[in-house]
Order: sequence, then structure tokens, then C-alpha cells
Amino acid sequence: MYLTSINNEKVKFWEKLKQKKYRDMYHLFLIEDEHLIAEALKYKIIKEVITIDENVKYDIDTYYVNDKIMKKISSQVSGAHVIAVASTLKEREIKGNILVLDNLQDPGNLGTIIRSAVAFNFDTLILSDTSVDLYNPKVVRASEGMMFHLNIKRCNIIDFLQNLDSEYLIIGTDVVKGKNIKDLKFNKCALVIGNEGSGISKEVKELCHEMVYIPMNENCESLNASVSASILMYEVNHD
Amino acid sequence: MYLTSINNEKVKFWEKLKQKKYRDMYHLFLIEDEHLIAEALKYKIIKEVITIDENVKYDIDTYYVNDKIMKKISSQVSGAHVIAVASTLKEREIKGNILVLDNLQDPGNLGTIIRSAVAFNFDTLILSDTSVDLYNPKVVRASEGMMFHLNIKRCNIIDFLQNLDSEYLIIGTDVVKGKNIKDLKFNKCALVIGNEGSGISKEVKELCHEMVYIPMNENCESLNASVSASILMYEVNHD
Repeated sequence: MYLTSINNEKVKFWEKLKQKKYRDMYHLFLIEDEHLIAEALKYKIIKEVITIDENVKYDIDTYYVNDKIMKKISSQVSGAHVIAVASTLKEREIKGNILVLDNLQDPGNLGTIIRSAVAFNFDTLILSDTSVDLYNPKVVRASEGMMFHLNIKRCNIIDFLQNLDSEYLIIGTDVVKGKNIKDLKFNKCALVIGNEGSGISKEVKELCHEMVYIPMNENCESLNASVSASILMYEVNHD
Repeated sequence: MYLTSINNEKVKFWEKLKQKKYRDMYHLFLIEDEHLIAEALKYKIIKEVITIDENVKYDIDTYYVNDKIMKKISSQVSGAHVIAVASTLKEREIKGNILVLDNLQDPGNLGTIIRSAVAFNFDTLILSDTSVDLYNPKVVRASEGMMFHLNIKRCNIIDFLQNLDSEYLIIGTDVVKGKNIKDLKFNKCALVIGNEGSGISKEVKELCHEMVYIPMNENCESLNASVSASILMYEVNHD
């Protein structure tokens, strides 16, 4: 179908999906890159495709629009070539290792952590309800399509950790003191990474069974949060 | 000294330092955060301070300006509280492990890698002359002041690797095949990390003595470049 007016109701609806409140309301989000759309197609979550290019053909309802409409919908100043409207992800049963993010704010960090979690065979990502939105366009882009492979749940992490099966060792991270993760023995773990500036909140720290830290040069106060998370998941995966 | 006109020559000069060509020409760059300025002060590289706050006192020539001037100089839309004009970093003699970045483009990745390099006791960072500029404000911010602790050199990395002392093992990285870095024996290494999208260039790959890769789940094509670099430096440091 061809759309030419930026006042079309469809266009207005798509534009709303740039805001978290409407993504939450309609359980839909936008995917802005053909490589990511290809990944999402495997999970059958794409509802509609919007493109400026008549040569783009998917076996899904496709809307052909002009540059002006595309720029209105896209999160990128120069617009996108193709955008897909996709259903937000379904939660699955939790089976393996869990990464818990306590108030993580940077969308690039979240996307990077999602890639590493898939790489290092983590089963589930628990995102505190204070963290950056999973469907933020920068997160979707930085995750490089890996968000579709992971079981991701957004919730109150204090409730979540309090009700977690006792077979899980809850491991917190600290920049100055703690054990070396190589010295911990566990069957399954819930690894908690804190906020970029302030680390893990006091309430969450109290729920951790062990604290770990990554040994580093004294000139360095801390690592980037996505790097800390990735190194610890890498170690858990190689145990 | 108080400055009130955005047409003042000083203001025009500082604004030029937002561009790489002028940073290169004058060997000066801007630092936009008090925490970073505190780190830079230890290295005595700060020449002048610009601030909107009369309570800011450093033992360095300080210019008190208005919001309008500050917004013109700052890389941030909302302006900065304090900006320091600093000398670009001096190169030191190369002594220990070296990280080589081949056409790295993302400023956040470069800043993150600099933090990890200091954390994991790397001595020197070699930045290809095709990589993002070290003095890009986003790099300066993401490095969290760690750039001042590291020996950093920007050059043609092919020339650099061809002339590198033979005691160095040159280790390249590949996303699909290679050895596990734990299995390599060396005294000192030059670890090469490639571009975010295309990896290490063919010419540089030919100069590598060994290729390593990080074992990961088959659903994941690759890790973020700053994560790969950090995990490998973490392993080298713990060898």
C-alpha cells in the first residue's frame, strides 16, 4: 500500500511508537535496520513493514512511503530505508543462568550486554523497572538482533530476587572489594550488575549471597558496566 | 578574567577546538567535566579553565563566561559547567603490552577500551590514523580520565607493526576462527582489534603472528569491539 500524507492515521500511530508509553500500551516497537529485521523475521514477531524503496518485498503487509513520512517515524535524523513494526517479546520459562541489571541507564550498554549474554550462554536477562527501555531504538540497534534470542523480563528486581529458586547463587558486583568469580562454586547463578555511576543499590546488595570484583590496576576506578558484565558472564560460561 | 562577547577572539579560538583539524594544529583539546579535569590536573596538561561559575577556583588562568559563550564552546547541547583547555598527550617510550586499534570508529568504544587498557595493565595504545580521534569529546568523556594514564600514539599501524621489536607476539582477532588466547605463550604482545563492522583489515591480518577468537554461542555473530578487546586484555593480564 502507498501512503503519501504525514497526517494519515497509520503514520501518526507509527510515530507514537517512538515513545515508551505507547510501546507499552500497544506491545509494539520499531526495528530500523534490514539486518535486524532479518533476525526478527525468524521469530515471527513482525506485523508490518514500512519502506521508501519499492524494491523491498517481504511476505508481510508492506507500506510504501515517502522520505518525509519516513523521517517522521525513524529515530534517525536522516531516516531509515526500512522500518518494521514488531510485537514486543514474549517471556519464557527461566532455565539457566540469569543476568540482572539494576538501574542500567545507557542504551548502548544494554545492547552490548544483550549480545554478550547470548554469546556466553546466559538464559535470561532481568531488567529492573528503573532501567533504560529494552525497545529504545538505540538498544535495539546496539543489540545487533541478539535481543530476539534471549529471554528478557522487566520487573521489580527486589521482588524477583526475593522469590528466586534457592538453587541460584545471587552474585553482586563491587568495584573495590569482593571475591574472584573463579573462586565461587555454583550450579546456577543470578549475576547482578548495577548502575553506571552508582553501582548496585543498597537494597539489592543485601539480597546478594556473594560479592565479586574484577582485579584491576589501582589507577582505574572502574570498568564500563557492559565490560564488567561481559567479563563476568565470560567467566561463568567457562567455569 | 570575565568575557561577555561571543565574538571575543578567545571564544572563537576555543570553539575551533571542537574540530579535529584545529586540535591537531594547536595540540590542544577541551575537557568538559570537573572529574576529568581533576584527573588531567595530575598530569599538568591544563592551560586554561573556562567556567560559568564564579565559585570555581583553580590555580590556573580562569575565564568566567556567560551561558551563551559556554554553549558555543561545549559539545553538549545544554553546555558545561567548567571546560579546561589542555595540551594533547605526550608519547612515552613503549615498554609493556600494546593494544592496536585498526580503524575503530565509535567514540564510546574507544573511551571504554582506554579504561580497560589501564585496568588490565596495558602500557600503550596504538590508534590507526583511520580511527576516531582520541580528543573527540565523546572519547574524552567515555575514557573517564583514564586516557591521561596511558601511553597513546596515533600512526600508520602497518608501518608500526612492521617495525615492532621481535620480542612482541602480534595477535590478531577473528570472530570465527583462531586459537584460544589462554593457549598462547609470549613475553609481550601487541593485540590487534579491528573495525566494529569489518574487523581487522587484510594488510594488518597478514602481519599477525597468531589469530585468536573468543569462544561463543553460535547464535551470536560477534561481540561489541570494546567487549572483545577488554576480555582479551583481561586474559593477557591474568596470564
